[in-house]
Amino acid sequence: MAALGLVSMRVCVGLMGRRSAVPLQSLCSSSGMTLSQIDEEVAKLLQLKAQLGGDEGKHVFVLKTAKGSRDYNPKQMAIREKVFNIIVGCFKRHGAETIDTPVFELKETLTGKYGEDSKLIYDLKDQGGELLSLRYDLTVPFARYLAMTKITNIKRYHIAKVYRRDNPAMTRGRYREFYQCDFDIAGQYDAMIPDAECLKIVYEILSELDLGDFRIKVNDRRILDGMFAVCGVPDEKFRTICSTVDKLDKMAWEDVKREMVIEKGLSEEVADRIGEYVSMQGGKDLAERLLQDPKLSQNKQACAGLTDMKLLFSYLELFQVTDKVVFDLSLARGLDYYTGVIYEAILSQTIQAPVSKPSEQNGVEEAGTSVGSVAGGGRYDGLVGMFDPKGRKVPCVGVSIGIERIFSIMEQKAEASSEKVRTTETQVLVASAQKNLLEDRLKLTSELWNAGIKAEVLYKKNPKLLRQLQHCEETGIPLVAILGEQELSDGVVKLRDVASREEASHFNKRFLNKGCVT
Amino acid sequence: MAALGLVSMRVCVGLMGRRSAVPLQSLCSSSGMTLSQIDEEVAKLLQLKAQLGGDEGKHVFVLKTAKGSRDYNPKQMAIREKVFNIIVGCFKRHGAETIDTPVFELKETLTGKYGEDSKLIYDLKDQGGELLSLRYDLTVPFARYLAMTKITNIKRYHIAKVYRRDNPAMTRGRYREFYQCDFDIAGQYDAMIPDAECLKIVYEILSELDLGDFRIKVNDRRILDGMFAVCGVPDEKFRTICSTVDKLDKMAWEDVKREMVIEKGLSEEVADRIGEYVSMQGGKDLAERLLQDPKLSQNKQACAGLTDMKLLFSYLELFQVTDKVVFDLSLARGLDYYTGVIYEAILSQTIQAPVSKPSEQNGVEEAGTSVGSVAGGGRYDGLVGMFDPKGRKVPCVGVSIGIERIFSIMEQKAEASSEKVRTTETQVLVASAQKNLLEDRLKLTSELWNAGIKAEVLYKKNPKLLRQLQHCEETGIPLVAILGEQELSDGVVKLRDVASREEASHFNKRFLNKGCVT
Repeated sequence: MAALGLVSMRVCVGLMGRRSAVPLQSLCSSSGMTLSQIDEEVAKLLQLKAQLGGDEGKHVFVLKTAKGSRDYNPKQMAIREKVFNIIVGCFKRHGAETIDTPVFELKETLTGKYGEDSKLIYDLKDQGGELLSLRYDLTVPFARYLAMTKITNIKRYHIAKVYRRDNPAMTRGRYREFYQCDFDIAGQYDAMIPDAECLKIVYEILSELDLGDFRIKVNDRRILDGMFAVCGVPDEKFRTICSTVDKLDKMAWEDVKREMVIEKGLSEEVADRIGEYVSMQGGKDLAERLLQDPKLSQNKQACAGLTDMKLLFSYLELFQVTDKVVFDLSLARGLDYYTGVIYEAILSQTIQAPVSKPSEQNGVEEAGTSVGSVAGGGRYDGLVGMFDPKGRKVPCVGVSIGIERIFSIMEQKAEASSEKVRTTETQVLVASAQKNLLEDRLKLTSELWNAGIKAEVLYKKNPKLLRQLQHCEETGIPLVAILGEQELSDGVVKLRDVASREEASHFNKRFLNKGCVT
Repeated sequence: MAALGLVSMRVCVGLMGRRSAVPLQSLCSSSGMTLSQIDEEVAKLLQLKAQLGGDEGKHVFVLKTAKGSRDYNPKQMAIREKVFNIIVGCFKRHGAETIDTPVFELKETLTGKYGEDSKLIYDLKDQGGELLSLRYDLTVPFARYLAMTKITNIKRYHIAKVYRRDNPAMTRGRYREFYQCDFDIAGQYDAMIPDAECLKIVYEILSELDLGDFRIKVNDRRILDGMFAVCGVPDEKFRTICSTVDKLDKMAWEDVKREMVIEKGLSEEVADRIGEYVSMQGGKDLAERLLQDPKLSQNKQACAGLTDMKLLFSYLELFQVTDKVVFDLSLARGLDYYTGVIYEAILSQTIQAPVSKPSEQNGVEEAGTSVGSVAGGGRYDGLVGMFDPKGRKVPCVGVSIGIERIFSIMEQKAEASSEKVRTTETQVLVASAQKNLLEDRLKLTSELWNAGIKAEVLYKKNPKLLRQLQHCEETGIPLVAILGEQELSDGVVKLRDVASREEASHFNKRFLNKGCVT
């Protein structure tokens, strides 16, 4: 506080120096200041700064994107489009609608939804008006949307970017701007049916993306809470112990135990009891066995969770996905808003993240989810009620696909494959071997466009034929339509297959007009 | 300044009061303050504010989206998807790639690019680190991308949201968050060929969207500048007079003239000379006539522009789009970065904007472009050079489709039409008339999904058949597969056409597996 007072004093004296005498004594006798006075003061200082004219000293403009963000180049976009098509195709196959929400929300809409992670929220500058923040995920805006529209039943997907002020240097492989790809089912339904569909969707998407073998871990918040209770964890420590358990996928049990005992103050005995449970994995059988567990069976929460887990597995059997789904008591997941089933999909065979290229200035190259995990979600029955003025609840269950991680794997696969990724869909290049045929090339190209054929023409009056053929090879255009004086007088077009260099017999232009080139 | 000094004094005294005695005299003797001291001071005041604990007084949470922003509901998204498909289809037909850039840029990337409109840029809060702003358009990020990647040739499209702190109440029909849909051709090419393709694209898109008759106005910055010069406008007033001329589509000439003379200080004579030119409209013939104009023909800039305009029209004739394109000397367009051809597309028949619904809390319902205008763009040969460390230029020409205006028109058309907009693509609902068939419904649904058929099932153990048929009618699902004890024992499925209520003969499940339902 000493420094604060000191600098403040200098400020005020400095400001006073800019104008004529002021009764210092009378001002100095007033004491204390309110928050709105601070606001006013800050605004005035900033205004003064603006009047003084920008930042001090010489400034060098740096040509880069913001820390933790990146551009997508055409090749990355082509891969992104392919991945999105598979995912959206699956969502549509399951009868989902889609919605979109603004990139920013009122700051208070996000307040109190993310626990400790709230510090990672990007706020907008107060430029007069509402206080806004960039969305941190798609789930809270979805809940806000449901409460605002009073919709009680919807199956929707939403693919959009979200924003987190993570330190990309510290948590390697994370971007500050990244895609989320969410599918959620809202509504009061019979138990575990929508939950099972979410898992079926994860199964379908990961299979179709062909990312290698995977597992989907399943657990339930109620089972975790019941387990903590019967192990002797005090109520107020449930959440913090939960987040320690969540580290079991990256840390050894010994280290997790140490954190529980030393940092979080559990007794060794309690920690060991937790250790026994969280080492358990299985399927429907495990749920049945735990329902007979002398301690767990006495806990109401745990029983409800285990009963639902049994039911869930019976539906998963009908969906034929149990070969990949594991009931795993160590799965915890960090977010506060989950109330029931939770799940996470992990690729068995972890593909190495690509080495950061020297040209990459931000020092990041990856994903929005932890390494290995490519999907996650769960049931959150209380979130919509937090927004509803009357606290009216809308039960929800959903899944988020870790699309950035998937992009990165697909990029590596494309890199490793000999097949070139095309960034355009052009079917034919209209070319010429002779000079002064620009007008004829433009005319034919236009006819092709009008016929719905994807066509290009070089923007040169007299391009060399070789240059035109090179363009086809570089961009993967399969066909080239070659115009010449002879062809023009005959009213035909010569068509060449770029790869085989075979020249097809002369096609009549009227044929092209009918789209017969494809 | 008196008030500023006064409050500052009170601040510093207030802060001092919180700690023990400080040698006031010695501090008061220092004078003046630097910008970095102001920064430091502001940070400390804000920290103090945080310590004092948030805002004063009771606060009521308001359930809404940020001012000027909106959610898209599933129906709006279905229309949006349809529009995007047409537009992206056209871009791909012309051989374009796509890129994506982050939603925020370094603040200084946007500085000095938008003239007066810079005040509308959203800044992010300084949370430590770089100063960021939300993108204001897609053109400046594109230029930054080109300079950063050193790409000199690209034909790309980019569809994404941009952000402008316009007052939605004042400029009715504008959102603060809205889509832009840009197509640009970068590279050193022979004159007017890419420019003509941009106009062809506008023509194709507006025709395919079926929005009624339209016109595309074309002009050239060099012709405007030449015209101002020969009319006697002082050099330093070119830009401001340009923005006055730009108002001719919304204001009568008399009012535009008054602004020129009274607000901008032109003589009546000069204004009248401008008035003569800006009333001219035509095609190639007008360009030819003006090349003979005794005054304009003496101006180098104007001659270059008019010669290119002639050439442009000859290409437009080849593309068969001259029926909608008008060379219009009153077209000015506001943005500073244009250097050559400029254009704007206007719908002839202005459809009324929809009346704001009472539920709409933000009081806005429309568009990102001025009423009537649905596309615009031009040539900007200097923008990339502003980012390149060596000032290396990359000539560019592009067009932005006013997609929000188009959405709004398509929504009205959908509203007016008797045809219902489907928000899902589900082909079949798996239903049952009898109880206890949930498992069989789930199993069949799963088989349909596995066969790539878009299928839904109600998440109820024993839903009523009527409820299931209602769901089909509400959401437009054309077929319902009805399971019963009899069908199950026969290993078949009854298929009903929802609209005609015709029941198809019993389909074998194996048929469905092969995807024959579609």
